[in-house]
Amino acid sequence: MQCTDSKSSARAGTITTDHGQIQTPIFMPVGTVGTVKGVHQTELKEDIRAQIILGNAYHLYLRPGTTIIEKAGGLHGFNGFDRPMLTDSGGFQIFSLSGIRKLKEEGVEFRSHIDGSKHIFTPEKVIDIERAIGADIIMALDECPPGNSDYAYAKKSLELTHRWLDRCIQRFNETEPKYGYTQSLFLIVQGCVYSDLRKQAAEHVASKKADGNAIGGLAVGEPVEKMYEMIELVNDILPKEKPRYLMGVGTPVNILEAIERGVDMFDCVMPTRNGRNGMLFTKNGIMNMHNKKWEADFSPVETDGASCVDILYSKAYLRHLFHVHELLAMQIASIHNLAFYLWLVSEARKQIIEGNFSLWKRKTIERISERL
Amino acid sequence: MQCTDSKSSARAGTITTDHGQIQTPIFMPVGTVGTVKGVHQTELKEDIRAQIILGNAYHLYLRPGTTIIEKAGGLHGFNGFDRPMLTDSGGFQIFSLSGIRKLKEEGVEFRSHIDGSKHIFTPEKVIDIERAIGADIIMALDECPPGNSDYAYAKKSLELTHRWLDRCIQRFNETEPKYGYTQSLFLIVQGCVYSDLRKQAAEHVASKKADGNAIGGLAVGEPVEKMYEMIELVNDILPKEKPRYLMGVGTPVNILEAIERGVDMFDCVMPTRNGRNGMLFTKNGIMNMHNKKWEADFSPVETDGASCVDILYSKAYLRHLFHVHELLAMQIASIHNLAFYLWLVSEARKQIIEGNFSLWKRKTIERISERL
Repeated sequence: MQCTDSKSSARAGTITTDHGQIQTPIFMPVGTVGTVKGVHQTELKEDIRAQIILGNAYHLYLRPGTTIIEKAGGLHGFNGFDRPMLTDSGGFQIFSLSGIRKLKEEGVEFRSHIDGSKHIFTPEKVIDIERAIGADIIMALDECPPGNSDYAYAKKSLELTHRWLDRCIQRFNETEPKYGYTQSLFLIVQGCVYSDLRKQAAEHVASKKADGNAIGGLAVGEPVEKMYEMIELVNDILPKEKPRYLMGVGTPVNILEAIERGVDMFDCVMPTRNGRNGMLFTKNGIMNMHNKKWEADFSPVETDGASCVDILYSKAYLRHLFHVHELLAMQIASIHNLAFYLWLVSEARKQIIEGNFSLWKRKTIERISERL
Repeated sequence: MQCTDSKSSARAGTITTDHGQIQTPIFMPVGTVGTVKGVHQTELKEDIRAQIILGNAYHLYLRPGTTIIEKAGGLHGFNGFDRPMLTDSGGFQIFSLSGIRKLKEEGVEFRSHIDGSKHIFTPEKVIDIERAIGADIIMALDECPPGNSDYAYAKKSLELTHRWLDRCIQRFNETEPKYGYTQSLFLIVQGCVYSDLRKQAAEHVASKKADGNAIGGLAVGEPVEKMYEMIELVNDILPKEKPRYLMGVGTPVNILEAIERGVDMFDCVMPTRNGRNGMLFTKNGIMNMHNKKWEADFSPVETDGASCVDILYSKAYLRHLFHVHELLAMQIASIHNLAFYLWLVSEARKQIIEGNFSLWKRKTIERISERL
């Protein structure tokens, strides 16, 4: 870590990978099947200024499959994005397939959401898949219990997750990257909303001395204060010198709160998914682009926005594009929202380095939470 | 016209508008509701090199409506495209609304395809709408009879079209452009596939000495040779010194055949619509991107293609994007196909000027018609 905020746990750091450096705190656009929905790779780099994007091992394993990705020289070769990438194991997706999956000690059996074909993911197999995909950072396979799990289930699940993490580490250490680029394995802290389980999980994970550590299983329905409490508790235990990644979170406010509590990395489908539905995050608040109030507002989408689409198009034009269900609406909103998220974390970084984070955060949360 | 081919009727020319010059022959991407589907305005200008795009008066009248467009300072102000634009009257769209429209001497009554609301388009009203939209070139309202109309209907329809054209001209002459930019009115030759009606229509239209003349009502189901025959017949009569626009046509081969017969301007939804469905036009033939044969073909979409997406993405990646139904597939294919169409007409222009058009056309048709 290059810099730590004096008034909070917020940190600014740098992660170095063979595909380039990542300045933290960072937001990672989600490119589930090797594409960030509606966004060209050039726009990701030049306009959104994404430093790292995500792929999903479960989705990429099903389509196009690891054989094709290997022939392409890994995901970087396949989709042409030459900056760092991270793959999630897909555990979260598989455990969302309720009814069509079966949990065993060995791993998890599931049926493809596409064609119903039967597959099994073991910790070893997931590492093999992520080696084949070749992302710079790869995630271990964990069990993702439902957000409302009772204590007994959460405890049993965590024990399984720990045995799986150990098996992931072993397979990772026994294997080599396939494309001449180093890969780092990140471990995941589970434990639902139970403090003693989260503590135990963080201690287990910390003891493994992985290149980075993640917090999973949050923002799955628990009260937001409970999420922040769990983050604090876990980050008190996770090593300070390693990156901390809060998986699948969240709103811009969630991200600022988590940065304050010492989180460095984030991913979420919210900027793209909500964008496609007409919701725009801006420096001055949230806009619903379906709203008739924008019908004759010919001012830029965002006057001092973070992306070039903000001044290329007006609110009225973007509202019209949503109104007539045009593809370009989703494209503009996706670029806009991702650029906003990237602006938010880079500004947070700047404020941490300048020692102004806490004050800036308070003011920013107020501004960005307005309903425009 | 700057240049005419010695062996055919092909011509190279320049159309000057207040939003810039258009080098003909030209293809005009279709932006029905003020957006070319899936394509940013910057991509239209910088990558596709569109010199002029289309809008549709019927669609723009319904949404966002002329009040909004007028407040925006016309369509140029509304969508931010600062090059020439042309609006079709929307007659073709209204006459496609069979069952929910009623033809009268005065005009055509119809119900909106969106909310069923009742409207009437008269020649005068269409000119008023196109004045409000403010495109550089505006089209007269004609009746578009079905492709299989019998002679009696076609004749009656043509007589009505001629009375409407005269009313359009009168309204056009009585009104002024609203935004300080000159507008030109183009007239339309109808007459189905009946030579004497087409001849009579071309003579009527030619006598009006409009800034440009269009051929409508072709490529609606008649044999392709019949279409070429009608184009030849009409172009023999239409003034040589004015641009000729073949409406809604067509395949790349149709376009080359029509250029050879003296057509200067084209529009068609084919490059974008077929692109969204996975069909790519290339210099070496047609590709169906859903085809499994591209699954592991990591070569560029098109090695010497006309657009930058051609080398940014591989065939295998684009095939994957179509396979998983990703937005980016439609975006890439739309840019690619439009850039191909623009390349085709600009290359045709070059060959006309260099005196090689006929030979080049024969070879090109052979190459681009391959199935890859």
